[in-house]
Amino acid sequence: MPKNREAARANLENLYRIFTVPEAPDSTLGAIAQAIAGDVAGFLQTHIVAIERSMEEIETHFASAAIPEEPTYVSDYTEFVKEHLVAQSVHTAAPGFIGHMTSALPYFMLPLARLMTALNQNLVKVETSKAFTPMERQVLAMLHHLVYRKADDFYPAWIHDSQHALGAFCSGGTIANVTALWVARNRLFAPAGAFRGIAQEGLGAALRHRGADGIAVLVSERGHYSFGKAADLLGLGRDNLIKVPTDNRNRIDLNALRSEVERLKEKNILPLAIVGIAGTTETGNIDPLHELADYAAELGCHFHIDAAWGGPTLFSDRHRQLLSGIERADSVTIDAHKQLYVPMGAGMVVFKDPTALSAIEHHANYILRHGSKDLGSHTLEGSRPGKALLVHAGFAIMGRKGYELLIDLGIARARTFADLINRHPDFELTSEPELNILTYRYCPAKIQQALSKASPEQRSAINWLLDQVCQLLQKNQREAGKTFVSRTRLRTPLYDGELTVLRVVLANPLTTDETLEAVLAEQCELVKESEIQALLEQIEGLCGMCSP
Amino acid sequence: MPKNREAARANLENLYRIFTVPEAPDSTLGAIAQAIAGDVAGFLQTHIVAIERSMEEIETHFASAAIPEEPTYVSDYTEFVKEHLVAQSVHTAAPGFIGHMTSALPYFMLPLARLMTALNQNLVKVETSKAFTPMERQVLAMLHHLVYRKADDFYPAWIHDSQHALGAFCSGGTIANVTALWVARNRLFAPAGAFRGIAQEGLGAALRHRGADGIAVLVSERGHYSFGKAADLLGLGRDNLIKVPTDNRNRIDLNALRSEVERLKEKNILPLAIVGIAGTTETGNIDPLHELADYAAELGCHFHIDAAWGGPTLFSDRHRQLLSGIERADSVTIDAHKQLYVPMGAGMVVFKDPTALSAIEHHANYILRHGSKDLGSHTLEGSRPGKALLVHAGFAIMGRKGYELLIDLGIARARTFADLINRHPDFELTSEPELNILTYRYCPAKIQQALSKASPEQRSAINWLLDQVCQLLQKNQREAGKTFVSRTRLRTPLYDGELTVLRVVLANPLTTDETLEAVLAEQCELVKESEIQALLEQIEGLCGMCSP
Repeated sequence: MPKNREAARANLENLYRIFTVPEAPDSTLGAIAQAIAGDVAGFLQTHIVAIERSMEEIETHFASAAIPEEPTYVSDYTEFVKEHLVAQSVHTAAPGFIGHMTSALPYFMLPLARLMTALNQNLVKVETSKAFTPMERQVLAMLHHLVYRKADDFYPAWIHDSQHALGAFCSGGTIANVTALWVARNRLFAPAGAFRGIAQEGLGAALRHRGADGIAVLVSERGHYSFGKAADLLGLGRDNLIKVPTDNRNRIDLNALRSEVERLKEKNILPLAIVGIAGTTETGNIDPLHELADYAAELGCHFHIDAAWGGPTLFSDRHRQLLSGIERADSVTIDAHKQLYVPMGAGMVVFKDPTALSAIEHHANYILRHGSKDLGSHTLEGSRPGKALLVHAGFAIMGRKGYELLIDLGIARARTFADLINRHPDFELTSEPELNILTYRYCPAKIQQALSKASPEQRSAINWLLDQVCQLLQKNQREAGKTFVSRTRLRTPLYDGELTVLRVVLANPLTTDETLEAVLAEQCELVKESEIQALLEQIEGLCGMCSP
Repeated sequence: MPKNREAARANLENLYRIFTVPEAPDSTLGAIAQAIAGDVAGFLQTHIVAIERSMEEIETHFASAAIPEEPTYVSDYTEFVKEHLVAQSVHTAAPGFIGHMTSALPYFMLPLARLMTALNQNLVKVETSKAFTPMERQVLAMLHHLVYRKADDFYPAWIHDSQHALGAFCSGGTIANVTALWVARNRLFAPAGAFRGIAQEGLGAALRHRGADGIAVLVSERGHYSFGKAADLLGLGRDNLIKVPTDNRNRIDLNALRSEVERLKEKNILPLAIVGIAGTTETGNIDPLHELADYAAELGCHFHIDAAWGGPTLFSDRHRQLLSGIERADSVTIDAHKQLYVPMGAGMVVFKDPTALSAIEHHANYILRHGSKDLGSHTLEGSRPGKALLVHAGFAIMGRKGYELLIDLGIARARTFADLINRHPDFELTSEPELNILTYRYCPAKIQQALSKASPEQRSAINWLLDQVCQLLQKNQREAGKTFVSRTRLRTPLYDGELTVLRVVLANPLTTDETLEAVLAEQCELVKESEIQALLEQIEGLCGMCSP
């Protein structure tokens, strides 16, 4: 055999080996997984990140822009991943990682996610997903039912209807929110007479058709930043995402909302949608949903609810009424990778009107043909994995009552933490928990007292310094890697301006009351650090001047 | 202990069990995975779908819209999934599944995907991803380098720069294409003088600012349907996605393109972007990229290349020149879940100008703060999983040469299949493969001869009947579940109008020449089915009348 052909054959054989799952899959694949995960589990029990390495140092291992020419042994790569990636990742499931919306996951999610990856279905079309398509349609119907509680005889007509979809399964809440506003925009400018609709003619023609100078979305200043992206993307412009002030409990101010709409009218700008929030990202509060529904009806505009975080509160018999009015929304976003406890990359939006998604319907010649049950004809995304399986599994295995337990636990724990903060002389609650999110800051009793007597200028100076304390404290705690809270800037009932505050999300059932005590205790230790002490001394100096 | 508290404690203990990975993770989790995957592997070796069940029958198992009240045992759910979901899913990795863009995957993807799920990082921000952020930045730089081949000293300044990103990692090619056109639109209407830019003021104000009546994107009629969605979403309107005719090789007709641009000018519509395709979805052809780059430069508009499919051809020393000119594009989309052999749900877009993504930059108070390295400030999506790990692994483990082998193999195999079809008396090639995609149809020699002599009316009638044959053949083959090709409708050199054709994608290295022979042999068997025979008899009747 000539040498060239010999080499070619060797190459081919290598390829076959790489693309064929080894004969004894569990031992071989298991060995790789084991090698990677082995000692990692150990430190992740005690630390949120490994011994802190600077980002600059980590970056040196990801510095080359050249794709390697030659192959590497899987075992060598595994070693690299262990040392430089896994060991320097974040233990988002740790009981003490209470700063963002991640949690430990039910253990069955892992083997089912593996199954999902192995099957590698593509939900854009039935030809590459078969039973996964009705499964995803069922998941969307279940979420629809959770929100809208339509009668049992409503669903059979719609759940598997090839012309429609009750919602869209997305890669996350951002795409879900964008999809909702996209549908709202296209319905506002639906075909009418000679005007063939905005989907066909575009926003310029649509505005001319209605004789309007713009369209706007109204949401409270606590609205998620995805609405800014949506306003940009959909052509509204960020100026026309109207951020309405909130009351003392981070809920949209209805009078301010009315004034904003009046102002839009004067500018000849149409209100496209009012967005209510069920669980604000930063504070977990819920807008007055019924009042918003009434007002949207009065205006005749779309009413969207961003329940990406708070939606699963509907599972709880005790707390469901907090979301009363959600059933009146035209569309609702709920994230699956948040309180449905599914791994990262899964969100959903459902629509009250089962024909709503027709406003963004699209087809192609090779897939998504008219009459097919392909879900891709009603989604913003194209090819998508079978993530709906994990939601389906969560619903089936945990049941409503399982999720109810999680919701009740998180809300109770937030109350516990709020009480702990209120009782502690060195901390100050900056937003009361309504669901399972709260904010607070480090502010020793002495400073609290001084602030109550301070002049506006003194207050402003002290708060500015407290902001620095808060920022440093949060950074140092993160870098210490034992526990983690996040931070944000908010207007609070304590002060006219914005304050930097610590933010806590309590959705991980493995977080205990002891964890919460440990977080505060660690913070009391961390403020002893010299840079923070210097700031605190400055503050005390100012406080001395506050006494009347 | 009172009964209520006892029940509560039992509930809590259950929760802890569910959220804690069992002590011996490999045995317990392995058992679940095993139970699910066990005998499934068997039939997937021989079948693409299990014994065909009708969609209606499958739907009966996914019919309820009510979320179950009570929990279910994982083992019971596992049984359900095995029988009703996995057994009725599609074996997208089968060597005989050559109808869509799925393939067997390198075996190391599975344990690494499992690791990714277990770590559950969120790439939107460093606080929930740490080392995954520089890793993803490196992957984007590697793709940028593959496309643009900038000098080595270009990358250190940009790869980890907190103010910028060389591209965006997305859930798929659709989001990548949308992101590219979003950036293009925002750069066309950048802030200028009193005009604060389209991102701020919206499309209506932007058009007024430029005194234009609309903006348009031009792409060949072979363009992916995601551009239609993008045109709708971004406010252009589908009318302003100009689908330019193609030549005999499915490449954009440059004269027609010029005429379309002239027509736009007459309508006072600005050309926003010209899109070139490197590997059309249906036929795998490549537009004349240099000519498009020249013309885009002449017009001063954005030049985007959709290389979702064909981009990885750049790995091949032999075939790279087919994509010559790609380095002149302002932005390029490449899908990772296609020819980078990563599981479903991963795409990328890179930008020649490393500051381009600033046009869609956004911030928030709790994350994505100015100066942070959070990747979320430059992506359309928000929370995202660490899928970039799988691309990183592919690049490292397979190396450029590994991917080159795959590309060369696919292109060679498509040539082989084309020859097979050309030699076979009963089939007709409807598009020559340029990469690894081709189309053909069933059309016995006798009918081919008759068509060559037929009148236009006869030709139209015969082709209409052949379309029915093609459609039935494809459907019956899919339902038989042994091998799979897809179908689409195309204009071809054979005929003025559109024809229904069979479509084949050859990217799975486990597909052999024998597989291809088996596909044709099965089709020759399937046409013996009575419904198809009746059509063929009708055609033969018409053919009898075609002789001169």
